[in-house]
Amino acid sequence: MNTTVKATTSPIVITPAELLAHWQGHRDLTRRVIEAFPEEQLYTYSLGGMRPFGEMVQELLAIAAPGTKQIAGEPAEELNEHLEQAKTKAGMLALWDESTEELNRYWAQIPEERFRERILAFGQYEGTVWSTILYFIDNEIHHRGQGYVYLRTLGIEPPQFWDR
Amino acid sequence: MNTTVKATTSPIVITPAELLAHWQGHRDLTRRVIEAFPEEQLYTYSLGGMRPFGEMVQELLAIAAPGTKQIAGEPAEELNEHLEQAKTKAGMLALWDESTEELNRYWAQIPEERFRERILAFGQYEGTVWSTILYFIDNEIHHRGQGYVYLRTLGIEPPQFWDR
Repeated sequence: MNTTVKATTSPIVITPAELLAHWQGHRDLTRRVIEAFPEEQLYTYSLGGMRPFGEMVQELLAIAAPGTKQIAGEPAEELNEHLEQAKTKAGMLALWDESTEELNRYWAQIPEERFRERILAFGQYEGTVWSTILYFIDNEIHHRGQGYVYLRTLGIEPPQFWDR
Repeated sequence: MNTTVKATTSPIVITPAELLAHWQGHRDLTRRVIEAFPEEQLYTYSLGGMRPFGEMVQELLAIAAPGTKQIAGEPAEELNEHLEQAKTKAGMLALWDESTEELNRYWAQIPEERFRERILAFGQYEGTVWSTILYFIDNEIHHRGQGYVYLRTLGIEPPQFWDR
């Protein structure tokens, strides 16, 4: 068995660069959902006893860059979902854009073999690195989908899901 | 340049088997959301002018197995989102379970190099095979997240998102 055989039995499905672009495409769509959300409803509007959309976005901000930082080799941090700057829509969008840059920067530091390793994300969630990253992305899609319902019930048309 | 070098510059992020297991994990969660949904509301309840959850599930059924069948090399079919059997909850769950088996069967027929090729899914959506599969999964997460809001506003606690 050599590396050539290994490559044949475990073919490339998606490359690290493609996975990053996939995530950033989703993050760009989420940014447009934040932009579409009325500022006065970000922390006041909710359905079925769920969190307001602003709190969901704070969770996404708490996960993306800090989570990727740990994957890149830094010590685990605790989840910080209370970001003072995110209390206004402009502040939230500014944090989002900073996260976008941080994500690109940390991603570039992830060694290629890292995706197959195990990690205890935020010191508490165990899994492979690849499954952890997919969890981050899936969690964003999940909450953004809920944001779509919030927007629709507020009479606002969300951006198209497929437009990434 | 040989295959060995190529394997080094494009490391494995996720294998085909892992991607299938990831998707089936999501599909198992979606199945439990369908189970949690009151049958009498599947096609009558909606928020903000959106589709009832039952129609979203028909879309997911129309995509998963037929989409994977095409990826496995069969001719493209048109999207068929009108499934008579899905009109009842029991029928919908039975179709869901059939799709689970079909998905496994077609997946096993996908050649390893196929994930990097381009495809015109359902004869109209162009992309790579990997991005098409991620789109199928992401679309399911998106609509299931909306189903969570429907359930919550109906006073029903959905299954935990992380329980897959």
